[in-house]
Amino acid sequence: MKTVKQLIQEIDINEAFYQAVFGIEKEGLRVTSNGQLALTKHPQEFGNRNFHPYIQTDFSESQLELITPPLPSIQESYNWMAAVHDVALQTIPLDESIWPISMPMVLPDEAIIPIAKLDKKEDVKYREVLTHKYGKKKQMISGVHYNFELDDQLILRLYENQTDFSDKNSFRSMLYLKLTKNFLRYRWLLTYLLGASPTVDDSFFTDQEIPQKYVRSIRSSHYGYVNQSEVSVSFNSLEDYVHSLQDMVKKGYLSEEKEFYSAVRFRGVHQAEELLTKGISYLELRSFDLNPFDPFGMSKQTMEFIHLFCLYMIWIDETATEDEIKTGEEMNGLTAMEHPEETSKFQEEGLQLLEQMEQMLQSTNGSKSAYSCIQEARKQMVDPKRTIAARMISGIEEEGSYIAFSLALAKQYKKEAVKRPYNLTGFEQLEMSTQLLLFDALQKGIKVELLDAQDQFLKLTFNQHIEYVKNGNMTSKDSYIAPLIMENKTVTKKILNAAGFRVPAGEEYTTLVDGIAAFWRYEQKQIVVKPKSTNYGLGISVFKQTPSKKDYERALEIAFKEDSAVLVEEYIPGTEYRFFVLDGEVPAILLRTPANVVGDGQKTIKELVAIKNEDPLRGEAKHRSPLERIELGEIEQLMLKGQGYTVESIPEADSIVYLRENSNISTGGDSIDVTDEIGESYKQAAIEMSRIIGAKVSGIDLIIPDPTIPSTQEHLGYTVLEANFNPAMHMHAYVYKGKGRRLTMGILKMLFPELWEMETTNQ
Amino acid sequence: MKTVKQLIQEIDINEAFYQAVFGIEKEGLRVTSNGQLALTKHPQEFGNRNFHPYIQTDFSESQLELITPPLPSIQESYNWMAAVHDVALQTIPLDESIWPISMPMVLPDEAIIPIAKLDKKEDVKYREVLTHKYGKKKQMISGVHYNFELDDQLILRLYENQTDFSDKNSFRSMLYLKLTKNFLRYRWLLTYLLGASPTVDDSFFTDQEIPQKYVRSIRSSHYGYVNQSEVSVSFNSLEDYVHSLQDMVKKGYLSEEKEFYSAVRFRGVHQAEELLTKGISYLELRSFDLNPFDPFGMSKQTMEFIHLFCLYMIWIDETATEDEIKTGEEMNGLTAMEHPEETSKFQEEGLQLLEQMEQMLQSTNGSKSAYSCIQEARKQMVDPKRTIAARMISGIEEEGSYIAFSLALAKQYKKEAVKRPYNLTGFEQLEMSTQLLLFDALQKGIKVELLDAQDQFLKLTFNQHIEYVKNGNMTSKDSYIAPLIMENKTVTKKILNAAGFRVPAGEEYTTLVDGIAAFWRYEQKQIVVKPKSTNYGLGISVFKQTPSKKDYERALEIAFKEDSAVLVEEYIPGTEYRFFVLDGEVPAILLRTPANVVGDGQKTIKELVAIKNEDPLRGEAKHRSPLERIELGEIEQLMLKGQGYTVESIPEADSIVYLRENSNISTGGDSIDVTDEIGESYKQAAIEMSRIIGAKVSGIDLIIPDPTIPSTQEHLGYTVLEANFNPAMHMHAYVYKGKGRRLTMGILKMLFPELWEMETTNQ
Repeated sequence: MKTVKQLIQEIDINEAFYQAVFGIEKEGLRVTSNGQLALTKHPQEFGNRNFHPYIQTDFSESQLELITPPLPSIQESYNWMAAVHDVALQTIPLDESIWPISMPMVLPDEAIIPIAKLDKKEDVKYREVLTHKYGKKKQMISGVHYNFELDDQLILRLYENQTDFSDKNSFRSMLYLKLTKNFLRYRWLLTYLLGASPTVDDSFFTDQEIPQKYVRSIRSSHYGYVNQSEVSVSFNSLEDYVHSLQDMVKKGYLSEEKEFYSAVRFRGVHQAEELLTKGISYLELRSFDLNPFDPFGMSKQTMEFIHLFCLYMIWIDETATEDEIKTGEEMNGLTAMEHPEETSKFQEEGLQLLEQMEQMLQSTNGSKSAYSCIQEARKQMVDPKRTIAARMISGIEEEGSYIAFSLALAKQYKKEAVKRPYNLTGFEQLEMSTQLLLFDALQKGIKVELLDAQDQFLKLTFNQHIEYVKNGNMTSKDSYIAPLIMENKTVTKKILNAAGFRVPAGEEYTTLVDGIAAFWRYEQKQIVVKPKSTNYGLGISVFKQTPSKKDYERALEIAFKEDSAVLVEEYIPGTEYRFFVLDGEVPAILLRTPANVVGDGQKTIKELVAIKNEDPLRGEAKHRSPLERIELGEIEQLMLKGQGYTVESIPEADSIVYLRENSNISTGGDSIDVTDEIGESYKQAAIEMSRIIGAKVSGIDLIIPDPTIPSTQEHLGYTVLEANFNPAMHMHAYVYKGKGRRLTMGILKMLFPELWEMETTNQ
Repeated sequence: MKTVKQLIQEIDINEAFYQAVFGIEKEGLRVTSNGQLALTKHPQEFGNRNFHPYIQTDFSESQLELITPPLPSIQESYNWMAAVHDVALQTIPLDESIWPISMPMVLPDEAIIPIAKLDKKEDVKYREVLTHKYGKKKQMISGVHYNFELDDQLILRLYENQTDFSDKNSFRSMLYLKLTKNFLRYRWLLTYLLGASPTVDDSFFTDQEIPQKYVRSIRSSHYGYVNQSEVSVSFNSLEDYVHSLQDMVKKGYLSEEKEFYSAVRFRGVHQAEELLTKGISYLELRSFDLNPFDPFGMSKQTMEFIHLFCLYMIWIDETATEDEIKTGEEMNGLTAMEHPEETSKFQEEGLQLLEQMEQMLQSTNGSKSAYSCIQEARKQMVDPKRTIAARMISGIEEEGSYIAFSLALAKQYKKEAVKRPYNLTGFEQLEMSTQLLLFDALQKGIKVELLDAQDQFLKLTFNQHIEYVKNGNMTSKDSYIAPLIMENKTVTKKILNAAGFRVPAGEEYTTLVDGIAAFWRYEQKQIVVKPKSTNYGLGISVFKQTPSKKDYERALEIAFKEDSAVLVEEYIPGTEYRFFVLDGEVPAILLRTPANVVGDGQKTIKELVAIKNEDPLRGEAKHRSPLERIELGEIEQLMLKGQGYTVESIPEADSIVYLRENSNISTGGDSIDVTDEIGESYKQAAIEMSRIIGAKVSGIDLIIPDPTIPSTQEHLGYTVLEANFNPAMHMHAYVYKGKGRRLTMGILKMLFPELWEMETTNQ
């Protein structure tokens, strides 16, 4: 029989060997700011636990279970884990955080520890059985589960080149079974490296006591999260596994199959019985303590090391026998109970394993990061002080107690999560609106698939209902023609004008000659001359006085440099407001002002700008942000000069100094929410315009000279400048002044009204 | 009181002076190929005459009235006239054309001449009254009505700078009344220049006879289309006009106000009474004979001359008195009855008028074409043989009779109209799909406004129902997300694949390194390597054999030169078909083959190509066409070389020689309609794919190895390559082989189902 090693080498598919699918499930207790178990309910913002794919509760109402979907790379899994943490940490009350280690804080009386308040009776019942058998406290031990699936095409290629198996399912199960057996034999190494539950409060154990102050992993030891000793399941063959597991349930040693707390669980089926026909689809590795040094419980390097470890378990020629598995379990138990700063009893075997893993990398053209994973593990094997558990001891000693140590980290991670609420950690490369929408979908429990990150293309699923979203608010709810209308300023104006709305009078010209010939139409007016399609202010001339023919011609020439069509429009004085129209409502209105500082009579403009730029909303390097820093470049300095200032000038107290003419957010402008200040007559006008265009989502720009006077049919209070498709949402969410408006949730509500209806029904 | 001339010069708005709005209504009899009045019904393709804005019937069922909307330039009016003619001529039976002169052919018995079969009883009643009063024959005289409106802003500017009128309406009415009076005084000049009804068959008059063989205009003479002599209406003032007209009706001399056949009619009101409050909105000039030398009854130059004439009528200081008007009418009657080859009795006044018109041009910076209009008129004034009527006489003499002359022209215009059915005359600059859609809308009677020609943006209106269409089939019926999905090939594939459709296996890579590392996935397959977004075949490599690693890498490099993302896909052998999906149906399936010729054993490839290129479907210079000519460029010659040919080779009889690898129509490929040959199972698949994507209109490209075998769930007969938004429609309408499919009418039906429901109800 050819080994995997032989097959890989024979068919020369090194790259394929490293292809796999990963999924993480991470438990963690909610903790209050003074280190108590949070007794608040699972936040209702998380929607319904009956279906939530990412945020669940485990045993206890206070025990969050954060879940990633299966993803084809470690980087993606880690990013998802980060994102789900971000959502969880920002949603739970501000004074709560997530306990970052496996062993719990000092717990209240068992009676007070709340069992998860689930809808399904059998789920609650199961937790009651566990309470009875293990006590609630033991169920509060948390950990990370690591789901691992080999690439399907890799398995196919290996299968096609071997001769011992005549069906792919059996071949695959063989691979996973081999992996499992060897994993159980050698997993002590992972406990050595990743063990991270060195101690626990004395109150945790009522009838026993850990014999030493620190161990590598209480959780992985027989003091930890293990079945009662009469539970015995064989991994000899798939058949033996299924039958012995069924036997344990039949005998009543286990209430259900899922009560079997093995380090490895076979996945892809609902009941073990099905494994006999379907085989093993993937593995769930369950033996990992929370790593408190990583904000999400497991570092990327650890995820990669576990991957390499799993690959090595199928790479080696031998498959562990039942006896060897037993030996392995004993070694693991011993390792778990070692003092973290002690050299491992099995150091020699450990170094040998790492040596062989490195050889595997050499044979298969392993990546740089794979090598450095192994090298780091070797360093820890040689020097136990580098292990997580040993580093935790330093931290605990420094902070005075593991409680203080853990709480400090919990608070630190919470602080980081709430620092930039406009970013979704792990997805910072996406547009901000997409980040916010993703955040809301993860929070609400809508399944998300990132179809194309570069293109901001999401697939959202709830039950059988699928919706696609591009750039945060381009959806199936909008008609195709609406954005096409809005894309064409002339067409938009014609349509809105025909429907009776006031638009700036004006015409489009496609030749300079035609434009010049029409001067007579404008010579008595304030006008704007602008290229038809440009959006960045290039080529625009504004005449706040009636133009001379010469200046008018010059303005046309400038505009024609930017576009083959030029608009000449009436200039409308007044303040411009952005109305965000969403499904027949106006949930947000924004006033944008040019970059500015307010003097205090003491600081220079340069200093005032520096202070204003400290606002985290104005962004940091590598982070997208809802506002931008004010630059002091050529344009700003010119603008200052025009007002008689330099950057060193000290403006009088309360005087506003503008640094830009344009009010774009992108050039340091301020955003001011005025949703509640603008009257209904204007909102209705924006809604009606949106309806005329046929848009569900649009950004309507109105010039309003005085918003305190209601607009009427006789005295229209506004002129409409533009209607924008795919209007920005993030600038409404986090504003310089006023109340932030979360529009992304409104988009989800438009797409999945049933989710909100359900909520109403449930209340 | 300041004159218009003074005002124009004072406020220096020469360009404004020439701004106006024009609308044309043109009557014309349908004639059979042997010169008889066509007795067929008004074609039902023209939809419903209750609302048709462009194609109506006048007095007789056989008398088409073709109408343009009001448009702001002569060029646009002329284009519309051309387009409406195109639609009319292509829709009436193939053996019918439109009689191009004002006086009818030899008419059948009065009893046989059909009155227009209109729905409204009052409309039929009115025609019966006319029959009784004038006889049917006189009602068959046809002409052109010219609607003329001064630019509103021009009127405003003039109004603002005068002091005699205190409301704009009165000022405007004064202008139009002045224009009218002077027009009536001088219109003999237009009759001289434009008179075009020199003779008629003897059978036309039963109780009188034209005293000479040829006159300038029977129609404009007292033998023509005039009221009975007791009808007398005053143009002295608006009040006098209204009251005298009402008096004529009251006295029973006119059955209705509209029976008043004046050379000028005041428009903008339903009843004359309203003129007293609303004033005159615009004028309808009704005195023009059909010009047989123009396919649409009036040349562009004539339209411009009339415009200049009208402007001159308000430019001159004087306003004709009632006596002068009477003189003018007499001069007009005399002019109409002159022999066309005779010098005008009023040549001196004519030359003077033209001289003064030219002075007006000099004062107002008139355009070159305006000058040449005047110059041409002057030539005709000096040399009567250059007038239309005189030129008609030459034609009549040449053809033997006015009947033969007229019929020959009618047939010529018909021939030109049906020659390029894929073009809509007057709108050739639009995309072909938009031309076809416009054609259908004009035919069906849906009101069309060209919002942006460059952008192919149409506004369609029926009753209160408005729809917008861009590029022929981008509409409100499609959802916004559907084209966004189709625009992204990777997303489309993921979505169709997730829905259970077979797509070419493959992946997207954003770096060369990633692409190369995935070689193992493809080394055993036929593949295509292509840039993600390019559409023109650039950077695509096809491996019909399994690729070597080196060739694979090279292909990736080539593709990455075109795009930052590259797709590697399974190559699917078989034939590619384009399924056009429209609103849940597949009205057209097209097979496209590369440019080719079929040998006859005698001609060279060069000769065969030349013959194939003669097909009018392959286009002419300046005309868009559904197929393209085959080039004999570098690529074609290389392709021939590969097959052992040169352009001078003589292929064997019936052998097919391909000149291109790619099957694009744009490089001379053939289009073959196979809609009826492809089975329902494939159509259903395409419909379902379109549904999954959420598209109402899409072009689904399927590879089908054998379309004779139905596709089943177990044995899928196809692989889907792409889904295309805004799929081309013209290539289905006019095909190289097979039946053309008119998809544009289906688009209209999707947009305005009520129009089709109405039809069903009416039947």
